[in-house]
Amino acid sequence: MPLPEKALIAQIRRMAKSSTRGRALGSKGPIFTGIGDDCAVLRLLPGQETLVTTDFTLEGIHFRRDWHAPESVGHRCLARGLSDIAAMGGEPVAAFLSLALPRDLPQSWVGRFARSLISLAEKFGVTLAGGDTAESPNGILADIIVVGTAPKGKSVLRSGARPGDRIFVSGELGGSAAAVLQMRIKPKKKVKPRDYPRHFFPEPRIELGRILREKGIASAMIDTSDGLSTDLAHLCEESGVGAELDAALIPRARVGKPAREVDLDLALHGGEDYELLFTARPGKRIPSQIAGLALAHIGHITRPRLILLRNLKGIAYEFEPRGWEHFRR
Amino acid sequence: MPLPEKALIAQIRRMAKSSTRGRALGSKGPIFTGIGDDCAVLRLLPGQETLVTTDFTLEGIHFRRDWHAPESVGHRCLARGLSDIAAMGGEPVAAFLSLALPRDLPQSWVGRFARSLISLAEKFGVTLAGGDTAESPNGILADIIVVGTAPKGKSVLRSGARPGDRIFVSGELGGSAAAVLQMRIKPKKKVKPRDYPRHFFPEPRIELGRILREKGIASAMIDTSDGLSTDLAHLCEESGVGAELDAALIPRARVGKPAREVDLDLALHGGEDYELLFTARPGKRIPSQIAGLALAHIGHITRPRLILLRNLKGIAYEFEPRGWEHFRR
Repeated sequence: MPLPEKALIAQIRRMAKSSTRGRALGSKGPIFTGIGDDCAVLRLLPGQETLVTTDFTLEGIHFRRDWHAPESVGHRCLARGLSDIAAMGGEPVAAFLSLALPRDLPQSWVGRFARSLISLAEKFGVTLAGGDTAESPNGILADIIVVGTAPKGKSVLRSGARPGDRIFVSGELGGSAAAVLQMRIKPKKKVKPRDYPRHFFPEPRIELGRILREKGIASAMIDTSDGLSTDLAHLCEESGVGAELDAALIPRARVGKPAREVDLDLALHGGEDYELLFTARPGKRIPSQIAGLALAHIGHITRPRLILLRNLKGIAYEFEPRGWEHFRR
Repeated sequence: MPLPEKALIAQIRRMAKSSTRGRALGSKGPIFTGIGDDCAVLRLLPGQETLVTTDFTLEGIHFRRDWHAPESVGHRCLARGLSDIAAMGGEPVAAFLSLALPRDLPQSWVGRFARSLISLAEKFGVTLAGGDTAESPNGILADIIVVGTAPKGKSVLRSGARPGDRIFVSGELGGSAAAVLQMRIKPKKKVKPRDYPRHFFPEPRIELGRILREKGIASAMIDTSDGLSTDLAHLCEESGVGAELDAALIPRARVGKPAREVDLDLALHGGEDYELLFTARPGKRIPSQIAGLALAHIGHITRPRLILLRNLKGIAYEFEPRGWEHFRR
């Protein structure tokens, strides 16, 4: 019997070759020559810097097979990496997938996973340029690597925030964590992906990130993968500043059926929304939306290295980032 | 209690920052600005193409904790990626480590693993520029990504071999598989790393690969990670050619104590030697050694797409590549 990973190599190679081998992705894009070689070869244009990000997607940690369809796992796997590129204001150009599969995994699971991942890649003009496959001793293990570009010196870093900058976030928060909460509370009840799209099929904010970089709006930026409180703490740490947030201004996701607004705690601490959290200099005019996404002004950067939250009663207190714990028991 | 991965992030960041943050690696190297950000940012010189490779190192598949010390696991993890860069004739510039660790893994294991990996990185001027960490539901899981460069259009691909080209291999073959065989046959007996250095601490052939590319010697190249028979089959497939090997000419490793030559089968099919297998045009003068490594002329490329082996009795027969099965039971 052929091992699943053998079939997978063939399948992914076929899909990747037929759609993108040797293709120049418009005038901005790179050319690939090395698919099927020891390394992928990328020819990037001069004047660009290269962005690289890697993210695990592990069964039992980042997803559960009984909760997530293979399409969702494939989509989320790549979306995590694309979101990191968005958070730099970059353009994604190539993805690499390292995938280890248990021997007994049905081939159909792999096909559905791969098709969904490749479909998201195509949507963003990203070439699946290589990777590695192996047999997994336990569970499905994926690691996605995304390579992107930005004009030299123009990537938006976490470290650019200064006291007085205003803090903004795109879209709504807490929608992804709300799905996890539902599945935890009622493990038997099927949670419908269409009621929680931000959890099952998050959309990386590539266009928003690029516009924020091109127009020089964002002084610092990060994506909300770990949750607002944790990601804001990362941004503040790298910038050497503090922040004050206003709870009343935090955009809370409306999820479920009938749709209702998530609790403040989920919006503050829930991870995997993949929105963009950024700062802007005081004088900068910020549109109320960009690329169809609402931008909410939720607070400002301070000199003291503390993170304060002004709660719904208007009282400010220091608050601790709470880690996003995925599906940890 | 802090989770091991939290301590690891801090530890690896500290090591990586102190040794390489913002450093320009000589006039040839890139500058990094993004350590600790959503992505690593690499500024590569114009006129270069970018090489990217990813390789898993999974407990129970690629190593066993009772057989391999953490120093060996860290070394082999990075060596796999560096060897892929060598096989393109490239210069490695940056590595990214995705690492998932079980909760109960002793912190000392992680420290010894990381120090060994970073020490190999420093030896080759490679910056550990980022990665991901997670909790592993089962066993130690690592994925190494190595980014390298080569002058545009000069990377040595697998696809460049033509009928009439001679086939060469560096060093000796079968030494790594011999160690695995020893450990399988006598699982109780400690196999000494110093008796089997090619298995426990393989040396990526970066300098040899670069010289073969610079001097225009290699028409096609691959590293012997899966074993001579399998890797030659890959090279032939990508080049659309066949090959004839002479068993008597294949350099067999001398291993163990007292040292003895490995069986032909191990040299033909054993994986993870990380030597370079390359072809050269008929007229090209090939030195007997480069960078201190012997180069053996072991056969030639043919037009019919078959791989033939002339055995020790001088009889040629078609032979099938046999896959390298790691530690599969």
